[in-house]
Amino acid sequence: MTNLTQFMNSAADTRPNATATIMGERRRSWREHRDRIAKLADSLRKLGAGAGDRVAILALNSDRYTEYYHAVWWAGAAVVPMNIRWTEVENAYSLNDSEAEILFVDKAFAPVVDGIRSECSKLKTVIYLDDDTLPDGMLAYEDLVEQGSLCDDALRSGEDLAGLYYTGGTTGFPKGVMLPHRALWYNNLVMSKMSEGQPESSYLHAGPMFHLADGAASGGLTAVGATHVFIPMFDVEGVMNAIETQGVTHTLMVPTMIGMLMNSDAFDPERLSTLQYLTYGASPMPEGLLIDLIKRLPHLKIIQGYGQTELAPIVTTLQPEFHVLGGNNSKLRSAGRPVPGTEVKIVDETGAKVAPGEVGEICARGMGTMQGYWKLEKQTADTLVDGWVHTGDGGYMDDDGFVFIADRMKDMIVTGGENVFSAEVESAISTHDSIAEVAVIGIPDDNWGEAIHAIIVPKEGKAPTTDEIVEHCRPLIANYKLPRSIELRHDPLPVSGAGKVLKRDLRAPFWEGKERQVN
Amino acid sequence: MTNLTQFMNSAADTRPNATATIMGERRRSWREHRDRIAKLADSLRKLGAGAGDRVAILALNSDRYTEYYHAVWWAGAAVVPMNIRWTEVENAYSLNDSEAEILFVDKAFAPVVDGIRSECSKLKTVIYLDDDTLPDGMLAYEDLVEQGSLCDDALRSGEDLAGLYYTGGTTGFPKGVMLPHRALWYNNLVMSKMSEGQPESSYLHAGPMFHLADGAASGGLTAVGATHVFIPMFDVEGVMNAIETQGVTHTLMVPTMIGMLMNSDAFDPERLSTLQYLTYGASPMPEGLLIDLIKRLPHLKIIQGYGQTELAPIVTTLQPEFHVLGGNNSKLRSAGRPVPGTEVKIVDETGAKVAPGEVGEICARGMGTMQGYWKLEKQTADTLVDGWVHTGDGGYMDDDGFVFIADRMKDMIVTGGENVFSAEVESAISTHDSIAEVAVIGIPDDNWGEAIHAIIVPKEGKAPTTDEIVEHCRPLIANYKLPRSIELRHDPLPVSGAGKVLKRDLRAPFWEGKERQVN
Repeated sequence: MTNLTQFMNSAADTRPNATATIMGERRRSWREHRDRIAKLADSLRKLGAGAGDRVAILALNSDRYTEYYHAVWWAGAAVVPMNIRWTEVENAYSLNDSEAEILFVDKAFAPVVDGIRSECSKLKTVIYLDDDTLPDGMLAYEDLVEQGSLCDDALRSGEDLAGLYYTGGTTGFPKGVMLPHRALWYNNLVMSKMSEGQPESSYLHAGPMFHLADGAASGGLTAVGATHVFIPMFDVEGVMNAIETQGVTHTLMVPTMIGMLMNSDAFDPERLSTLQYLTYGASPMPEGLLIDLIKRLPHLKIIQGYGQTELAPIVTTLQPEFHVLGGNNSKLRSAGRPVPGTEVKIVDETGAKVAPGEVGEICARGMGTMQGYWKLEKQTADTLVDGWVHTGDGGYMDDDGFVFIADRMKDMIVTGGENVFSAEVESAISTHDSIAEVAVIGIPDDNWGEAIHAIIVPKEGKAPTTDEIVEHCRPLIANYKLPRSIELRHDPLPVSGAGKVLKRDLRAPFWEGKERQVN
Repeated sequence: MTNLTQFMNSAADTRPNATATIMGERRRSWREHRDRIAKLADSLRKLGAGAGDRVAILALNSDRYTEYYHAVWWAGAAVVPMNIRWTEVENAYSLNDSEAEILFVDKAFAPVVDGIRSECSKLKTVIYLDDDTLPDGMLAYEDLVEQGSLCDDALRSGEDLAGLYYTGGTTGFPKGVMLPHRALWYNNLVMSKMSEGQPESSYLHAGPMFHLADGAASGGLTAVGATHVFIPMFDVEGVMNAIETQGVTHTLMVPTMIGMLMNSDAFDPERLSTLQYLTYGASPMPEGLLIDLIKRLPHLKIIQGYGQTELAPIVTTLQPEFHVLGGNNSKLRSAGRPVPGTEVKIVDETGAKVAPGEVGEICARGMGTMQGYWKLEKQTADTLVDGWVHTGDGGYMDDDGFVFIADRMKDMIVTGGENVFSAEVESAISTHDSIAEVAVIGIPDDNWGEAIHAIIVPKEGKAPTTDEIVEHCRPLIANYKLPRSIELRHDPLPVSGAGKVLKRDLRAPFWEGKERQVN
């Protein structure tokens, strides 16, 4: 009933000749798409992928990535989408941890396979996604599709494991989030509401497909049988070209991508005229960038998604009608309201609910709740308490039910006994017109415990002074929140595979040999 | 996880002071609404309503009807909403069949309680919903709310029984459709997409609240925490007044109600200016009326819902963008496409899928599928085959996945070996501008088996001739589908509690002493 192939299957049943996927010149109808999935699933079963078995992938975006997802589910197995920014050590760790015996790789990642193989004794089969020369010891993807028979769907659903989604790769070893069919099925259904997609819509996979930010946004379009358009990975020209040539209506980008797009000389609103909806999420959106986006693409309906892998992932959305400038835009800085079917509460350290407006930890539960972390009972018990996921994010809820993300709890700066949420400082700085990127961190300070330090990448040709930035922020935030020191950099800030700024890396040189207190 | 009180509870948690219900001068916030529900649930438990026990209601619309639904679920029991058009015999049958021990009634239905009691030995407690003099032997609703404590939600969900919805009362004895929490929960969630509701929306309960047509449309608004507005029962002035004074944005009406509204002298588009969405369904919409509606309320977004109690109930919707006149409106006569999460197939008599465009029986399955008919194994097995509900409705699907309802299979007219679906003939006749209501039935004919007979209620002051109607239809439908006889009536056509024209009653005088062949 909550089987993840249902949406694709329903599209193939009702609109067999409509376009399912577009990758460059390659287009496939829903009928072709389903047939390829059923045949690939048959080959996977013959290779030993049984009920609940994990099958991994390490690849850039493509139509075959979507086929992989559905074929694994059709076969009855569970997906393990690997982070394309990970090191070989992290990749090997997650493969070993998941006990995957089958791995899909593309041309971009074929070179790391030997290294992975030597670390992963359980790995038996590597399937090569591309059409050029087949690397030694791998099976060709298209051969498996061709050789497979049109087998029946395993029709897994409900609590059956659909995937292990590794998360937290930026601190310690990654944890495998166990998401059953009903969790991802629910995400698709509820996102079909929030993204306002229709069968005639088309979605561009601009962000990496291993990540649930793309999974969430695209899932809402899959639920209505819309067309999927793929580019291998984000780049400004690639995005603009795909939208322009394929008439894309929906996409998701993380804030760093939106920044690159908006700050690019090649940015051209004319070429984006078919785009109706842009969803952003996965990391905090600098307010200056958001305002710039609203001003420069006024026809666009903008949606913010806030979520977490542990919730499959969507928790709240800020819908287009709140993405307005001027008078009535007090909700613009919020992450929106809980989506239908997901409950949110804000709690203090004892787990008690706090009053509206008070900052605490954001907790959520719903049909998207994970089953737990794979083989990690203690971490599961710490995070999943009485059915509620403790997100680790600080925030508050206003009287209208809008959630405001203060910042990651662990990323909060404690200076002179005051709690300062970096996101607030970053938002203030980002509204200065010479800023391309900004990250605010706490650095050790003998007087204050921590002092607020801003790392800024200015726009091309701009060189704002510390005084200028501080004076710009003074009317916007309290004195104790003003940055004490500012550093200009000309390289982009380091980001994770999901596009989150790696604050730990930014902090590291300042904290060498010192221990930072985190709550 | 799929608990039906979740949406209400979430609204009370996140927007406690927003308005939940409006009944005349009486307004309650979500916080008050939830408190009253929890207290009433406590009283119900003390009266013996345990897990899965059936608790019935026979009443006109009110805010207390919504409280009843949620209090029964909060207590852990199951609702039995009774059809307000039923006879005492049918009422007694469904109460006995459901084994309900508790019954809610309002002033309108208090007079039938004695008769029901004498037939229903299991009935122990009758709760009186209104505030006037308490009838003998009943408990006062407000006393139970006041005396109850704020008890915890039973948090029933998934396959736990949420309600018995009696259906088919127009032929033979009614059957109790067993709907679990997940089925109605899913309906609410998917209808929140289709109805495009937001927390700021407000829904007018214009149709009877015992019926799942109102349940489906209002459920989509409940899912987002929108305001509910109530009138006791449909009447033109009541609807216009509620919309105008409460700023209603969404409502559902069955076609007969829409006809009464549009044909009323009091109809005034100005007074309906806040209304954004009108959903119709539950019986076929005459095309003439639909065209009139689109022309006369051009600002309105119109949604058709097609469903069946056995599917909790939504199956397909025709969304606003297809409710257009002129060139590109070939989908206007369809019932739309399957909603996300529900699969539809059209099958022949052997159960095999037919080709697009071919008429067969519409079958559907999804998270809304009923568990079966209460205590009716054979009927369950006949209707629910391999997880698919056989709707008994004839129809076809086009290449774009739009479902066209030919007519109820049993309502099809077989004339001279040709199958004629009454809805098609009714649609053609209804486009004539002197028609207020029309029903087409098959009557016995020695030559043709059945002949097509039209019963017409003309608009005030109009008296169309048979020739005029036939000539009007001639360019619209094939010759063999033209009515052979036409009868004018001045009283409204007889309708069921759900607003469906009672064709059996219309047919009866023609078929006395003869047996009609139905497939």
